[in-house]
Amino acid sequence: MIEGSAVKTRFNGKLRYCMVGGGPGAFIGDVHRRSIALDGMAEITAGCFSRSFENTLETGRALGIDRNRLYKTFEEMAEEEGKAGTIDFAVIVTPNVSHYPAAKAFLRRGIHVVCDKPLCFEESEARELAELAERNKLLFCVTYTYTGFPAVKHAREMIRHGEIGELIYVAAEYPQDWLISPQEREGNKQAQWRTDPQWTGESNCVGDIGSHIENMVSYVTGLRIRAVLARLDRLGPGRVLDDNATILVEYGGGAKGVYWSSQIAAGYDNGLQFRIFGRRGSLEWRVEDPNYLTVSQVGKPRAVLSRGRDSFYPRAQSLSRIPSGHPEGYFEALANIYTTYIRALVKHKAGEPLTEDDLDFPTVKDGLEGVRFIHACVESSRRGAVWVNY
Amino acid sequence: MIEGSAVKTRFNGKLRYCMVGGGPGAFIGDVHRRSIALDGMAEITAGCFSRSFENTLETGRALGIDRNRLYKTFEEMAEEEGKAGTIDFAVIVTPNVSHYPAAKAFLRRGIHVVCDKPLCFEESEARELAELAERNKLLFCVTYTYTGFPAVKHAREMIRHGEIGELIYVAAEYPQDWLISPQEREGNKQAQWRTDPQWTGESNCVGDIGSHIENMVSYVTGLRIRAVLARLDRLGPGRVLDDNATILVEYGGGAKGVYWSSQIAAGYDNGLQFRIFGRRGSLEWRVEDPNYLTVSQVGKPRAVLSRGRDSFYPRAQSLSRIPSGHPEGYFEALANIYTTYIRALVKHKAGEPLTEDDLDFPTVKDGLEGVRFIHACVESSRRGAVWVNY
Amino acid sequence: MIEGSAVKTRFNGKLRYCMVGGGPGAFIGDVHRRSIALDGMAEITAGCFSRSFENTLETGRALGIDRNRLYKTFEEMAEEEGKAGTIDFAVIVTPNVSHYPAAKAFLRRGIHVVCDKPLCFEESEARELAELAERNKLLFCVTYTYTGFPAVKHAREMIRHGEIGELIYVAAEYPQDWLISPQEREGNKQAQWRTDPQWTGESNCVGDIGSHIENMVSYVTGLRIRAVLARLDRLGPGRVLDDNATILVEYGGGAKGVYWSSQIAAGYDNGLQFRIFGRRGSLEWRVEDPNYLTVSQVGKPRAVLSRGRDSFYPRAQSLSRIPSGHPEGYFEALANIYTTYIRALVKHKAGEPLTEDDLDFPTVKDGLEGVRFIHACVESSRRGAVWVNY
Amino acid sequence: MIEGSAVKTRFNGKLRYCMVGGGPGAFIGDVHRRSIALDGMAEITAGCFSRSFENTLETGRALGIDRNRLYKTFEEMAEEEGKAGTIDFAVIVTPNVSHYPAAKAFLRRGIHVVCDKPLCFEESEARELAELAERNKLLFCVTYTYTGFPAVKHAREMIRHGEIGELIYVAAEYPQDWLISPQEREGNKQAQWRTDPQWTGESNCVGDIGSHIENMVSYVTGLRIRAVLARLDRLGPGRVLDDNATILVEYGGGAKGVYWSSQIAAGYDNGLQFRIFGRRGSLEWRVEDPNYLTVSQVGKPRAVLSRGRDSFYPRAQSLSRIPSGHPEGYFEALANIYTTYIRALVKHKAGEPLTEDDLDFPTVKDGLEGVRFIHACVESSRRGAVWVNY
Repeated sequence: MIEGSAVKTRFNGKLRYCMVGGGPGAFIGDVHRRSIALDGMAEITAGCFSRSFENTLETGRALGIDRNRLYKTFEEMAEEEGKAGTIDFAVIVTPNVSHYPAAKAFLRRGIHVVCDKPLCFEESEARELAELAERNKLLFCVTYTYTGFPAVKHAREMIRHGEIGELIYVAAEYPQDWLISPQEREGNKQAQWRTDPQWTGESNCVGDIGSHIENMVSYVTGLRIRAVLARLDRLGPGRVLDDNATILVEYGGGAKGVYWSSQIAAGYDNGLQFRIFGRRGSLEWRVEDPNYLTVSQVGKPRAVLSRGRDSFYPRAQSLSRIPSGHPEGYFEALANIYTTYIRALVKHKAGEPLTEDDLDFPTVKDGLEGVRFIHACVESSRRGAVWVNY
Repeated sequence: MIEGSAVKTRFNGKLRYCMVGGGPGAFIGDVHRRSIALDGMAEITAGCFSRSFENTLETGRALGIDRNRLYKTFEEMAEEEGKAGTIDFAVIVTPNVSHYPAAKAFLRRGIHVVCDKPLCFEESEARELAELAERNKLLFCVTYTYTGFPAVKHAREMIRHGEIGELIYVAAEYPQDWLISPQEREGNKQAQWRTDPQWTGESNCVGDIGSHIENMVSYVTGLRIRAVLARLDRLGPGRVLDDNATILVEYGGGAKGVYWSSQIAAGYDNGLQFRIFGRRGSLEWRVEDPNYLTVSQVGKPRAVLSRGRDSFYPRAQSLSRIPSGHPEGYFEALANIYTTYIRALVKHKAGEPLTEDDLDFPTVKDGLEGVRFIHACVESSRRGAVWVNY
Repeated sequence: MIEGSAVKTRFNGKLRYCMVGGGPGAFIGDVHRRSIALDGMAEITAGCFSRSFENTLETGRALGIDRNRLYKTFEEMAEEEGKAGTIDFAVIVTPNVSHYPAAKAFLRRGIHVVCDKPLCFEESEARELAELAERNKLLFCVTYTYTGFPAVKHAREMIRHGEIGELIYVAAEYPQDWLISPQEREGNKQAQWRTDPQWTGESNCVGDIGSHIENMVSYVTGLRIRAVLARLDRLGPGRVLDDNATILVEYGGGAKGVYWSSQIAAGYDNGLQFRIFGRRGSLEWRVEDPNYLTVSQVGKPRAVLSRGRDSFYPRAQSLSRIPSGHPEGYFEALANIYTTYIRALVKHKAGEPLTEDDLDFPTVKDGLEGVRFIHACVESSRRGAVWVNY
Repeated sequence: MIEGSAVKTRFNGKLRYCMVGGGPGAFIGDVHRRSIALDGMAEITAGCFSRSFENTLETGRALGIDRNRLYKTFEEMAEEEGKAGTIDFAVIVTPNVSHYPAAKAFLRRGIHVVCDKPLCFEESEARELAELAERNKLLFCVTYTYTGFPAVKHAREMIRHGEIGELIYVAAEYPQDWLISPQEREGNKQAQWRTDPQWTGESNCVGDIGSHIENMVSYVTGLRIRAVLARLDRLGPGRVLDDNATILVEYGGGAKGVYWSSQIAAGYDNGLQFRIFGRRGSLEWRVEDPNYLTVSQVGKPRAVLSRGRDSFYPRAQSLSRIPSGHPEGYFEALANIYTTYIRALVKHKAGEPLTEDDLDFPTVKDGLEGVRFIHACVESSRRGAVWVNY
């Protein structure tokens, strides 16, 4: 795995990680393991994959993990592995409810953490995790996968370089349709915990996918939200939490935006899309066709940039592994986040200073922003769709 | 012009119309004349094309109109032509400010009216026009052109026949970018009057194109708006009126929606688009690719219906003039509205009863709804984006 | 109808035309009448619409034509109208078999002719018509409609101005699927005459749509064919004539090409498309999305030009009637051909010299090239797909 | 890596492979290593990555391979690793010229082989390799990557189940533009060996990408080629081998086809596409948008199937790792081929019988067909584009 550029590295052996969650039936754990394997920079050596130890054992066996390093609880794993110093970082891919305690357990033991999003339920928890990481000098990554695509990074660079001028409006959306029928009553486990406040927190739709919009727009534009006005809908029958949300946004500096996320939009698989408008042009990108970026600059025809073909800024180009026209997808995007994180970890462990590019992965601070966003939207909606200041 | 089906008719000679507005430089008047000519069911025989009589004479000459039937004012034309009984209907294509007085002048003389949108500035004016038309038994068409496309009519029929189930969400938009630079200060006449409250009324962007969204969604879905929450933005420098607007909508029955219209969205020519979501499917259509309708029904793959190829409901199919794959465009859509109107007029004059299909053109009532919508949005925005009930 | 630029004209009244063909059930006659009406520069005043005089009377009545100017045969119409001098040009929209005798009849009477394609069956006939037109100084237009689109004309200008460099390869196609089932045995009249050598000539698919490819590529590129190698297939059951054809082409100068036309390609309505490759870029256009032109210049990203929005060469821009994003379609393309022809006729009648732009409509020479192309393809295929030199 | 279905397996530890080629600067070796890593079923344990041993050492170090298992020649590696029995299979990713001798070296030592395409230069060589593999009961995979996509496999299943009826026509193409400028004279190593007969064989364009068309169509349709008529062009200046090719195809059973491959088609990155037409429908797929399959069945609207969303046949569905809308790309396609191969190898080593699904990877027989195709095209073109029977 050495031919890429940014994904190329020199290191003495692979890093070692343990995983919390990701047992049988939990698709996202498998996705993380594959993405880490793609660049070959770390290997899994311990795990607590399920609340059922039977399941953990089964998964551990299949992954070829030493029986002694399969644990009944994440606390135990954090303690044992922390004591032994045999783990470089922990990956947390459980339902939302466990993110906070699990992350805390590893951070306290001095173990670096990668955690799925949303980071946790409460802003106070998020702040605590951020402080813990900072105090213990630990690298904390929150896996907002979609910012890992080269075309997204090129969009970010274009905006930073002023190629579309001052930003004035953002229209971003994330429609899906997997909850159009009451899946949670039809035995779909994913649907059960996603729609249950005890497992998922105060919001389903904003928490799960609306927060991806928030993170993506924040990453690409650099805009900071000043206020939100949100209408959270429960359009599926008998649902307690939101499954559709429309959010007006005001950014610092005067730009405006609208976000729409939905789980009941028939015909949409995974339609994350942003359209960002500046005074001199616009950028448009869809995750379902992620190797292309549509650029409309005032006075020029609408152009479609192709990853690898057209000149991308170095940071964006460096995260591509194959030539243009050979599609890269979701795994490669997540691998970009992991590989950036692991390379930073290697430098960090070696005591080398980290540059901005080294730290180009979503951190606990992004996780905190996500929690604040979810909370502000829920509050705005509860009060009848009023403006909530940040 | 006889081979079509709904566009086919039997009549004794063409109807005769006069036009207010549509002089040199006014693109929309020419568009209306061409659209009427396409089906050959009416001919222009009088006009007051401009406030400059010189211009009216020039346009009249080019169109081959009798010098005696070119007028200095629309009042004079209404009076003379009304007295002589030499006009079947009047077409009003002036800037917004003149719609109300001109329409009123013809209605009072017993002349049927076709008027561009938005109908007028005040709800009271709109109601007055509606009452006048009703009292005098006159057919009053407001040219919301976009509802004239066969694929739009098929979408409407699909919804009426329950093909996508109960409606739950609507996402519709109309982005353009022609006002991204301050055209109004650069000599663009269209931009001058569009951005000037004296000519255009209390709203520019919502009035010009937001009202198209309102009419389109109303036509296709049959949903009635119960409340709006609007944020009207002035994103172009030094602008008095809105050039961008984001509107949350609540419909009677519980469905929700979001509308976005913009004149500063770089890269967009004329991006009217609707996406309508029901419990069993969704429909999607874009005016820039108007011969196709994307249909996603739960349990079936996403399908793209092609006008003429796939089975359209009879009313929709009847408004197509050429086989599938031979693109029809804007003129044909407007011709559909005119031809439906003219056929209704022929039957009306013959004392025949008019069916629902006969009356399938936007009426003064649609115009009234448009005025109410614009006003509610302006009011909501002025008060800081609060809910305004209808 | 005066606001356009190239479509604007000054003239004393409309020209008058008669039509051969275009009776009940013949869709193309209606299409021609509407397209002529769109710009309002000519009106129909006589006709022989069908071999059945009853049908001619019916169509004539519906069109409001004087009973005395409806004819039993085109010969009679040519003679009477020619003698009286009451017709400016004749439009021939019959099945192919009558093109030659009808065109000849009008040319001999000194009447200008517009004839549908393919022009005729035999090269000798085509040459005779060309000579007759030249000798009698008559303007002869062959309605290859598709070259009338502004985006096509812009493509042509780009190539003439060297914007994609020396041409090296052409891939053009015209798939349809209307003959995938044996329509001709199921009562479809259009299918009956199209698949019958007596009515349609020696080729069905190449004659009907392959010849559109030939004309389009010739028009846009200026390349002249030096040799063809064709395989004509009869893929529908029991068919005598071709319904699918693949053709290798060699052009003068060394460029190469491949054309594919088909009437049995499931899923295709009317898929005329060209892709033209030069040493410095390529151009791509599809008739089903005709307002856009895809341009890929070496070293620049792939761009999509939009009619009206992006800078088109003046000749191309002048043939547009409405702003960008307001789709123009098939009728407008045909109207462009007619209006160019009629304007040329007006100047010609006034004794003014005609410029290249005046003559920018397909002529009898294009018709002749079409007949030669069809014949060369048929011959190549009959001999087992060998090269046939031009 | 255990959650997928077909990609899920139970085995005792990973298989071990060695690699020939894939040193610094050779992008494809890295791609193969990553794809194998994605599913984690094999690990690299030996290599001869370059003719320069320095380069081999550098690559080996970066990959963490034992210094003693890095070799100066593939012959030495085959001998040593074969003797020691420490390798399960060999991966050959060198320039074409070395495929034959390298594959032979491993097969003779009883080592299973995965080899890049085209398999070799001569039909006799290909037959020898096929016989050697059969005699020694070795599994031989030729990495035609593109058949690994789930949507391609679903297309194949649809055809096998008769969903588009008897096949009648195929239009397939593979345009690229990377050789539009004379890269080979500008220091591009890939271009140098690709355009040099000594390294690449008798054909460049057909050999490199035309053969992908041949393999893809053969895989998806099951059609066998009976004859080809090919025109190979050298459109780039000063080129000895073809860089563009147009090929007419006749299949057993009467279906026809046309293939176009090009390396000088401005605007195309990697445009492999097939359109397959049957009597009852058509299928269309593009590698640049590989998660979707366009299906047009007679009497139904054009539909776009989405991997994961719409019902795919089990074999196709089983090769998907993430939900619909989460794009999978090139690496996942190649991983599907490797994982299928490795699973077959595991069963084969265990003495279990192999089913058709087990053997669903491109074999040495596909490699042989590719060599025959290339040769027939070259011969046809040399003789002036005549039919060459198979």
